[in-house]
Amino acid sequence: MSLPLHGSNPAYVYEAFNLLKPHHVIDFSVNTNPFGPPSILKDAWQHLFNFVEDYPDPCGHQLVTLIAEQENLKESSILLGNGGAELISCMARLLSGKRVLIVQPTFSEYEKVCRMNDCDVAFIFLDETCELNASAIIQQLKNTDALFLCHPNNPTGIVYEQEELLKILEACEYYNCLFIIDEAFYDFAIEKTTLSSYLEESSHLVILRSLTKMYAIAGLRLGYVLAQPTVIEKLRRLKPYWSVNALALKAGELCLQDSSIVHRTQAFIAKEYKRLYEQLTNIGFMLSNSRVNFYLLRDPTLSKQDALMKWLLQKDIVPRHTYNFTRLEGDWLRLAIKREKENDLLLEALQEWRQT
Amino acid sequence: MSLPLHGSNPAYVYEAFNLLKPHHVIDFSVNTNPFGPPSILKDAWQHLFNFVEDYPDPCGHQLVTLIAEQENLKESSILLGNGGAELISCMARLLSGKRVLIVQPTFSEYEKVCRMNDCDVAFIFLDETCELNASAIIQQLKNTDALFLCHPNNPTGIVYEQEELLKILEACEYYNCLFIIDEAFYDFAIEKTTLSSYLEESSHLVILRSLTKMYAIAGLRLGYVLAQPTVIEKLRRLKPYWSVNALALKAGELCLQDSSIVHRTQAFIAKEYKRLYEQLTNIGFMLSNSRVNFYLLRDPTLSKQDALMKWLLQKDIVPRHTYNFTRLEGDWLRLAIKREKENDLLLEALQEWRQT
Repeated sequence: MSLPLHGSNPAYVYEAFNLLKPHHVIDFSVNTNPFGPPSILKDAWQHLFNFVEDYPDPCGHQLVTLIAEQENLKESSILLGNGGAELISCMARLLSGKRVLIVQPTFSEYEKVCRMNDCDVAFIFLDETCELNASAIIQQLKNTDALFLCHPNNPTGIVYEQEELLKILEACEYYNCLFIIDEAFYDFAIEKTTLSSYLEESSHLVILRSLTKMYAIAGLRLGYVLAQPTVIEKLRRLKPYWSVNALALKAGELCLQDSSIVHRTQAFIAKEYKRLYEQLTNIGFMLSNSRVNFYLLRDPTLSKQDALMKWLLQKDIVPRHTYNFTRLEGDWLRLAIKREKENDLLLEALQEWRQT
Repeated sequence: MSLPLHGSNPAYVYEAFNLLKPHHVIDFSVNTNPFGPPSILKDAWQHLFNFVEDYPDPCGHQLVTLIAEQENLKESSILLGNGGAELISCMARLLSGKRVLIVQPTFSEYEKVCRMNDCDVAFIFLDETCELNASAIIQQLKNTDALFLCHPNNPTGIVYEQEELLKILEACEYYNCLFIIDEAFYDFAIEKTTLSSYLEESSHLVILRSLTKMYAIAGLRLGYVLAQPTVIEKLRRLKPYWSVNALALKAGELCLQDSSIVHRTQAFIAKEYKRLYEQLTNIGFMLSNSRVNFYLLRDPTLSKQDALMKWLLQKDIVPRHTYNFTRLEGDWLRLAIKREKENDLLLEALQEWRQT
């Protein structure tokens, strides 16, 4: 069985399970905002056709200016990317042949692209609580050129303590190690825990961000990296010219105008996670301690969750397998938090599974 | 004066010339179809909003199938890219540290990305006619790992003889050298000269194509590469996951449905080039022997064309400088063929220049 590397595009997972894909499915494998793209973008869409014809601004000047204002950083500390994936890819090229440490389990792209760039890849594993243990990481930082941390972590959704993050940053400064934090989901948590305010003073901090998750524009591809200008310039040289398309640039400018989306989404996610957690633990499922728009789930009566996954697929519900999350390897499923009605259908299906 | 590396985004060129950018300009520096995006795309645009939310298919399966049918090739011989620029960038990474030969003057990206990947870059120069001389190139192929040829050539617009191209391909097979032909503009010429029918038998041929020029969708970014599956697989590994956005995929599928655009555009370009050539040579300008949607122009009474360029910019007409086309270095201007009325305005301006 050849499982797809990432969520979304459910046809590939039905194919892997040798199942016929139903016409309509609810895709819990895709981690974007359950409310879809902002109305400000939908309303402007017809007008945005004007940006199809000409080349995009290779610098994305207008969007960079907006992000700079929002982050209170200089424009020279910001680089746009064709989605987070392109920026992760550029980071790995920058680290070509170097020694990289990845905090596992986490998003599989860091390892994949680092190996492709002949990095010497080492792992450090979170314990079973999946909480961050700064001192365990710091012990391994000597002779490490870069540390990859996903925060909040994909696939657990766990938010770490600012204090622990700061200890790691300090140690990275000491050991001359780049601290690359992928904050793709940071804005889904009510309490935004980010080290972005340390960017001006730290030459070892690199923060990756995505606009495709919160604003549900994954089809357009848009992300950015925050770091000191010397790092930004090195990354810029590795990107193809015009890598960010003109629609993504314009969509990004519009989305960043409406901060109410972020607050409404955060409140909804917190409330809905609580509801799902209560109902699902009540019927014997285990859930990760998520603060964002997805969580890990397992039926503790099973080791691998394949039977549950297959059963859900047949109920038109698409979970994300965890076979390519090191150390999870199928012991959990990852599920997005969708809208209330969709989560209700998931709850019903899981209740039914319990009764089978 | 720091000139922009490419055409389009005219604000940067006005800035470089220290001129205030007028509110409305006619951008002759951008080489896309003068008629803009196809109506089939405009009509479907509102519906395409549905593809903003979810991740694009990382394989672009539907579009690849269409291209495979059109090119009469297997799907495994096709790889989509985030515009031609991404694919050129991937080619250079594949050639990392190798010996590369570039036929100059040509598009500046080949050299830029090859140098970034520590290639040993050599040039071979076309003579002043800018026609292809196969035997001169073949003489330099020994110990060369890859040859970059842009055909029809950017910036001259010249189409080469199929026979000459075939001689080079044969020599590339003999010397074990990849022959990378960038055919970004091949479909603007009435007689499409392409080696694509040799792809099945040649493991040394790589053809780069773009959909952004003919279909005027440069804002969306979309290109593809044709080669044997072993080359395609190596390139696929170098691309970030989801590098082609969902809108580009859908736009590509729509554009390829309407082949009448290609025929109408070819006929228009041929007629309009003839008209421009006659009128402009009549008043003493020199033009390259273009068969596509742009041409080189120079006022032979000047060496560098900066004065003419500045004068046109002040007339709200934006030419493309040639300072980063090796060997042209400002001795020519490149101009796109636009719609009749816009070309009339250019003709008027150049007549006026003659009378000053």
